[in-house]
Parts: sequence; structure tokens; C-alpha cells
Amino acid sequence: MSKDKFVLGIDYGTESGRAVVVRVRDGKLLASCLVPYPDGVIDERLPGGPKLEPDWALQNPLDYLHVLEKAVPKALKEAKVKAADVIGIGTDFTASSPMPAKADGTALSAVPKYRKTPHAYVKLWKHHAAQPEANRINEIGRERNEEFIRIYGGKYSSEWFFSKLLQVVDEAPAVYDAMDRFIEAADWIVWQLTGEEKRNTCTAGYKGMWVKGQGFPSSDFFRALHPRMENVIAEKVGEEYFPLGAKAGGLTAQWAKKMGLKEGTPVAIGNVDAHVAVPACTVTQPGTLVMIMGTSICHMLMGKEKQMVEGMCGTVDGGIVPGLWGYEAGQSAVGDIFAWFFEHGVPDYIHHEARKSKLPFQVVLEKRAASLKPGQSGMVALDWWNGNRSVLVDVDLTGVLVGMTLATRAEEIYRALIEATAFGTRTIIEAFESKGIAVNELVACGGLPEKNHLLMQIYADVTGREIKLADPLQTCSALGAAMHGAVAAGAAAGGYDSIVDAAQKMARVQKMTFKPHEKCHAIYDQLYAEYHTLHEYFGRGGNDVMKRLKTMRREISK
Amino acid sequence: MSKDKFVLGIDYGTESGRAVVVRVRDGKLLASCLVPYPDGVIDERLPGGPKLEPDWALQNPLDYLHVLEKAVPKALKEAKVKAADVIGIGTDFTASSPMPAKADGTALSAVPKYRKTPHAYVKLWKHHAAQPEANRINEIGRERNEEFIRIYGGKYSSEWFFSKLLQVVDEAPAVYDAMDRFIEAADWIVWQLTGEEKRNTCTAGYKGMWVKGQGFPSSDFFRALHPRMENVIAEKVGEEYFPLGAKAGGLTAQWAKKMGLKEGTPVAIGNVDAHVAVPACTVTQPGTLVMIMGTSICHMLMGKEKQMVEGMCGTVDGGIVPGLWGYEAGQSAVGDIFAWFFEHGVPDYIHHEARKSKLPFQVVLEKRAASLKPGQSGMVALDWWNGNRSVLVDVDLTGVLVGMTLATRAEEIYRALIEATAFGTRTIIEAFESKGIAVNELVACGGLPEKNHLLMQIYADVTGREIKLADPLQTCSALGAAMHGAVAAGAAAGGYDSIVDAAQKMARVQKMTFKPHEKCHAIYDQLYAEYHTLHEYFGRGGNDVMKRLKTMRREISK
Repeated sequence: MSKDKFVLGIDYGTESGRAVVVRVRDGKLLASCLVPYPDGVIDERLPGGPKLEPDWALQNPLDYLHVLEKAVPKALKEAKVKAADVIGIGTDFTASSPMPAKADGTALSAVPKYRKTPHAYVKLWKHHAAQPEANRINEIGRERNEEFIRIYGGKYSSEWFFSKLLQVVDEAPAVYDAMDRFIEAADWIVWQLTGEEKRNTCTAGYKGMWVKGQGFPSSDFFRALHPRMENVIAEKVGEEYFPLGAKAGGLTAQWAKKMGLKEGTPVAIGNVDAHVAVPACTVTQPGTLVMIMGTSICHMLMGKEKQMVEGMCGTVDGGIVPGLWGYEAGQSAVGDIFAWFFEHGVPDYIHHEARKSKLPFQVVLEKRAASLKPGQSGMVALDWWNGNRSVLVDVDLTGVLVGMTLATRAEEIYRALIEATAFGTRTIIEAFESKGIAVNELVACGGLPEKNHLLMQIYADVTGREIKLADPLQTCSALGAAMHGAVAAGAAAGGYDSIVDAAQKMARVQKMTFKPHEKCHAIYDQLYAEYHTLHEYFGRGGNDVMKRLKTMRREISK
Repeated sequence: MSKDKFVLGIDYGTESGRAVVVRVRDGKLLASCLVPYPDGVIDERLPGGPKLEPDWALQNPLDYLHVLEKAVPKALKEAKVKAADVIGIGTDFTASSPMPAKADGTALSAVPKYRKTPHAYVKLWKHHAAQPEANRINEIGRERNEEFIRIYGGKYSSEWFFSKLLQVVDEAPAVYDAMDRFIEAADWIVWQLTGEEKRNTCTAGYKGMWVKGQGFPSSDFFRALHPRMENVIAEKVGEEYFPLGAKAGGLTAQWAKKMGLKEGTPVAIGNVDAHVAVPACTVTQPGTLVMIMGTSICHMLMGKEKQMVEGMCGTVDGGIVPGLWGYEAGQSAVGDIFAWFFEHGVPDYIHHEARKSKLPFQVVLEKRAASLKPGQSGMVALDWWNGNRSVLVDVDLTGVLVGMTLATRAEEIYRALIEATAFGTRTIIEAFESKGIAVNELVACGGLPEKNHLLMQIYADVTGREIKLADPLQTCSALGAAMHGAVAAGAAAGGYDSIVDAAQKMARVQKMTFKPHEKCHAIYDQLYAEYHTLHEYFGRGGNDVMKRLKTMRREISK
């Protein structure tokens, strides 16, 4: 038998969880096992409970435990790895997906009295019903000139920790009173595995107003939000936070047995899917932007100094890699826009050609779009089908298409949509560079790059930068989680002492890269100028038509 | 046998000609016969001749004679009407569709030497290759402060008579020299029927810079355009013009024989399809806007005074009905936008429902769109898929869609497109009213109103005005042509002495009308304000992105 050691990575996504088994010395992926959440995303009706209001999105925390029980043993079996050779466990989670719990770690939603209470469940990252609360937080934060306003590029999101908690206080004060803890699911799962509530600096810094060395806003601030919340930090949240890669504790006997692992196996502090993906993409230094490309895009970048960059999702000291400032930005819909177009905008002649050529219609569309030169469609779009996260942080913005003629074809619209999302990424890059934070190179991971080479080439041409692809592309977060497990184990136990070391050995990129074409880049400079003009006009109050239309729609649909 | 008298109307459209036989006393349509043009719209290659450049659109004048030979005898036979009982013939034509001819009336394109020469053919109204010439005409016209600049709402179109003639001079001076006459097809067909070249005031006034009592611009102006054109009026165009409804002459023996009619039957002066439709819609007075709704919309209105209204296609004394100023405005794509959407934007789930419910997919779309309330789509569009005729007169403008979200469905886009075209009509109405020319009521004819009741209701709701429908809807122009035949015959011969008399007896509207709903109108007031803001921003130089995109597209496609 080899002396190889292994780590386990557990990646909690939106629809499912995935366990991977990874060889420590080179990052080789030995097994990967995906388990869908039995209750999935709960956005219409709580199973056996009440119908939800629009914009709600919940999860059942018991589904996370289900993943542990099902996926881990299966992955270990597939990898043919013994429990004794697994030296560490790392996890990553969507964020901010916070939940109420009792003092012993029991999810409040698992307490019989609260099983039919929506506010007792996990509020998934894409729960959007706390906008009034986010507005209040921002208003009061600005009045009081709170630090978090700067950290978050000027705006705290409705998707985040305290917006969601304030919604509980507003709408279900009894649930607020009944919870002993309000905690990110990322930290809750580590608590389950180790029996210790040790929270991570990443979700706290990016989503929870926490600042290294300073902690949270004052109780004055929280009292201003709601009198009931004056002592929320002491009572429900806690003040101690642990850095990424640190060991949270050892695996409990109970979970060791359930998963077929050794009791006491080191478990890393909780982490976020987008953030663990960065070292898994080989990136541990400034200058390289990591794009996690799927239904949306997360843009992760590091810098040596702290800067206020417009529209960031967060700026956290050591938020990605210890010793560097971690910046997170994002586009709230990318793959989702293409999925929308595939469902709502693809005409008969594309489907017909697909049937004739026995290709998926998406491939036919991509081929046709790829045959066009930049600028040939005569179109430009704004990629705001799901609002704009960075840099405008405005969920009420909507999509725009300009330039249709009677000769416009479906593939031209499709290409304009791809280009618009690339312009969105360029806008984020320019926001970084305007503050002196270099973006020299891009590394992509996620589901989109594999499916759509045209898209990757357009991103290279639009941004004028080479794009590398992570290897693996799609299980990048799970690999990153496993790498953090190796760091939690430490070099002495056969792991690594830092995530930088782990990245050097365990992470890699593919040989294939996308290089910008000079000619295309020059044309995209012109098109980007058009995008930018429209971006400023519709996005910064030149014409608030989108907001008025949305308001009108809401009122009329009542 | 009855003592009834009959008139023949011959309507020359874009793809075909139609002959109708109409009873004089009440306008009853006894027969209608459509004959497609054998060469159709020639926009790719001259049959047996060279390939055409982009934006060209020609016709073969022999096709017009083919319609006379085929359609008229068939219609007479179907109507069971004797030649002796046909007291007059009227015609109408697309405009401006001018052509070169020899002094004896022979079409230049029929002269063997010129059969393969594109410039020898009819330049159809939608021939768009004379834009550089139109630009020159406007530039020189403005410099010289020519009257025609005012008549045409500030801009002379590339679609019109002198733009097309100047293109011949520029590109084919030999053809210019070889032609004895340059003449609207509307006048040429009357010349063929009667043997007399008698031109009508309508095309001359609306398309040819001619002003009643003043004639054409001076030879100085034409010399400034091109030295060769200094004496163009005297040499090729002529100075005498005849009012609508006047008798051009009697039918020649040759054509009487070919069509099965009596030699000498009165033939009315040539006319334009949109203009003859107005009295056929019962309208002979100010205050009622006639909309001829098809692939595009022509808006026809009369006023007692002359006003300069922005973006008119023309303002002509007696241009529709003698004694009143006739205003023509238009939207360059309406039905064409829906046809575009049907081809390029309708997704699978609509086709699926259509198959399941055994309905045409257009009906499924209309039903779904009709189930939405105004404002519920959250969208607004600019209807510029084929540029903007009135009021901006700018072919380089393109379409815009604003407000898409991940939840937007095909029927919402469809409804937004319909609404956009209605807002386009409202913009024209407001241009009229801003000059004190009342628009109290609308009468619609053409192909669209029959197909799409949702559209008609939206037009009523958007404009806040009742809309009546002509009866018949679709053969309105042919009826109007026949009515002018009755006027050419005169009351003494069993016809009428004026088009007002003819309209009173021969024209009617349907019982069904579309009345605006107050609530919907109030919401559309808000949406129209959004449309108007975008109209001004994209249409008047706030952001010339559409022009830049078009230029880029042209250059890249080279």
C-alpha cells in the first residue's frame, strides 16, 4: 500500500452537496459524489407547512446532514481510501445562508414547535425578501457613518446576515427570542461535525459586518436598527472568529461512525464556496482575478492594501488567503441570462437546425454566434436580467437590448447577451484598477467555461486579458475545501502548514488558455464604451425607467 | 337587368395588383381579383441581369400591365358586369415608385438595350440605396432655405422621387440621358391606359417637391444638386399637374380590348394607395385620422390650414381631398415588427401550446398577451426595427427593449412590441395636436386590424381615442381607387361630382369599434411618458449609440 494521505472536501451548493476525496501530495481527485438536497430550494411552500411569500428562498438544515451521511461514505468507497489515511476534512458553503439554532446546536427548524415556521429555517443566499430591512440597515449605517458601508462598497445587501436577521425580528419576534444562536450554515455544519461552535472570519467579514481587530458595529447601531437587537452580538452571534485553514476541532465520535472516518480527524474552520475556489485555481497572490462562472459570476481578487472599491460584496483582511486583502465582487446573473434566453428567446429555425444536425440547440446557437465578428450584430445589451450586483448594487435594475432591426437574428441577440456579461466583468475589473488594484490575468472555474468556449474567447477579447482554466473546472470549490482540510491537518500530520503551500502542490490550471485577439479587443473597446454610456444612464439615475416599470409591475400585479 | 352602374378600381401594391368591381350607388364590392407580379420585388438580382447592391428594390413595369390583362377581365367576369355598365376606372399605386420612360411612354426597361440595366427599372418605394443623394438634397435644400424642407417636416426622404433620380444621375448618367421622362409609376399606368401623360398632384406634392401655385424648386436648386439636372423639370418631369378625381382621359382602344371594356371609358388621374384609402374610410373632413395598418402604418389627416408638423411625409393642398390640406405621416415598421418577432423570437413553449390547442401560434401569443394588464410586463420598447419615419425621419435608428428579468416571458415581449407601435402612433398624434390640428377619432383599415383585436384595443387605450374600422378593411385602397373612377366619370354619367359625394354613398365603417378604457389609458399615460423619454434620448442625439452600432456593423460586414 502507498503511504499517500488523503483529505475530504465537502462542498455545499444551492441544490446539492458534493463530497470529494483528494490525494494530499498532488491534489488528485479520487472520487466525487453528489447528493441532492431532499427538500431542495424551498421557495414556494414549506414542506407540510405554509405557502411562502414571493422572493423567499429557504433550506432545510437537515439536508446538509443527509449529504454527510450519504455522500461521504460513497466517496470514500469509490476512492478506495481507508479512514486512517484521511488526515483532514474541509467544507465550504453558499453564503450568506444563515439560520437560527438552539444553544446545543440543534437547528431551530428541527425543534417540533418550529417545524412549520418559515423563519426558523435557513435563509438561503438568494432569499430576497429582506430588502426593506437592508434599506433600513443602509440608511442607519450611512447616517452613523459605519465602517461596514465602506467595506461593502457603499451598500449592505438584502442577501446578507443582518438583513435576514432583522427580517426575523421584524416579522417573527418570537422566533428571534426562541433562537439562542443565529449562525451561517457554513459554521453550523462545522459545529455539527466537531461539536464546537467556532465561526469563520470569511462569512463574518464578507456578509456579517465583522472587521478584523475591530469586531462588529456597536450595540448603539444595533439598537438603532431595532431595540430588541441591542445585544445581538453577545446574545446570538458571538465575538470570536477563526481564520481560514485553522482547525475547528476533531470529528465527533458520532459523525466519525456515520461517515466511516476516524474520531478526532481534524475539521477545518467553515468557508465559502467562492473563496475556497481561489487557491484551488492556483491563485494565492495579488494580480489574478478568479472568476467562478455559473448561473452568476463571483469575482475574487487579492490586494496588498485595503481600498474602497465601488460595489464590492466585501473587502476582508485575510478573507481569501491569510495576509492579503480579499476582494469579492459579482454579477448576479450570467449563466442564468443564457438559460433565460434558451427558454424564452430561441426560435423555431434554431431548433429545426438542431434536429437536422443532431446537435443540442445550444450548440447550434453557439456555432452561429461564433461565426459573427465583434460588432457585426449591431447590438449592445445591459446584462441586468437579475439586477446588478457589482458595481451598482441595485436589484431593481433590469435588462436592456439596443439595436434590433428587421434583419436581426437569434444568434445575434445571443452573442449580444454574452458580450454584455463580458462588459459587466470588464466594469468590475476597471473598478479594481481605478483604485490601483492590478488585474493582470484571469483564471476561470465553474460550469460555464466548459460548456461555452465562445463565451471564454469573448471574455478574453473584451477584457484584453488571457484567461486560464482551473483543473478541475467544476469541482473547484470541493477541491478548495479539501485543501483547507489539509491545512487544518498541518504538515506534521502529512498535510500543509499554509494554503499557499497546499495550492502549490494540490492546485493546477489547464494547458488550454484563451488569449485576446488584438483586433477584436479594439472593436470591443468601442462597444464597451457604448455599454458604459448605457450603464451610467440607466444605472445611475440618468433615467430610472427600470425602477418605475418594476414598481408599476408590482402594483398592477397585486 | 338593373340600371346599376359600376366602376373599376385597380390597386397596385408592393407584391401584387388587385382589380375590384364596385357598384356606384352604394359601394358594394362585386368582385376582387388579385394577381401577383411575375417578377415581384426585385431586390437581389435583376431577372437575367446583374446582382443588385444592398438596399435596392426594383420592379418591372411590365408586371403592372400584366395585372391589367389578367385581373380586370377576371374581376369583370366574376362580377357579371357588362362593359357598357362600367362608367369609370380609378387606379392607385405605391409611392414614390418612379421610373424612366421614353417619350412615347415605353418603359426604358422594356427597351432591349436597357433590359439588363438596373437603373432603367422602377425604383420601388422601399428602394433605400439613395440615402447619400437624399442627404445631399437636404443639405442643399437647407442651405438654400427651400420650401420643400418645410413641406416634408424638415427632411426629404431617400425613398422619394428626386433622391432616386439623383441616384441615376450619380451612378448611371447614360440612363439619365437616355430617358425622356422620369415619372411616378402611378402616372405611367394612367398614361398607358389613356395614351396621355397627365401627372397627379398627390405624388408630386407628397414625394416630388411640387407645391400648388408655385411648382418645383428653381433650376438653380437643381443645378446645385447636379449640373446635368439644371433643366430636369422641363426636360424630364413636366410642369402641369392634375387634381385627384379629375379625368385623365378615355381608355385607349387597345386597352379596352385587352381588358374587355369600352373604349373611351373615363380614367381618373393617378393616385396613391394611402391617399385613396381616406375617403374609402368615410373620411373627407378634418379631425379624423385614418391609419392604414399593415407591415407599416400610414397616418392620413386633413386640416383646414397649412401647418409645419415635425416629421411629416408631406403636407399638400388638396393632397387627399380637394380644398383641405392633406397631411401624411407614418411608422416604417409595425406589422413587420410582429412578423420579425414571430420568426425570430417565439420560443418552443408557445409553439407547443399551439400544437396542443390546435391554434396558430400567433393566436396563442395574442391570447397570452391579452391576459396581461397594461404595465404588468414591466417592459417598454422603442419600435424602431426599421428606423423611424415620423416624427424623427431617421432610418438609422433601431429597436430597443427595456425591462427584461429572468421571469420575462415571450408574450410580455410581444405585448411590449405592440404597445411600442401604439406609442409611436401617439407620438404622431401629439405632433399634430401640438400644431393645433385636431385628432378626435381614428379610423383603421388594412390587414392588421382584422388579425389582431388586442392590438386595436391597445391602440385605443394608448391614444385614448375611439377607433372605427373601415368596411371593407383590406381592399380599402382598391375601393378608394374605384371611387375616384366614379368621380372621373362625373354625376352626369352616373358617377359623382366630388369625392365627398362619392364617400357619402360608397364608403362605410363597421359597427364594431374599439373604445378606450379609462383605467388602461391612465396607466398608458405613464408608460408613454417612459417611451417618450427614451424616444428623445435615443432619437434626438442624447445618445447616438444606434447610429454608431450601425456604422460599426456596416464597416465590419464589408
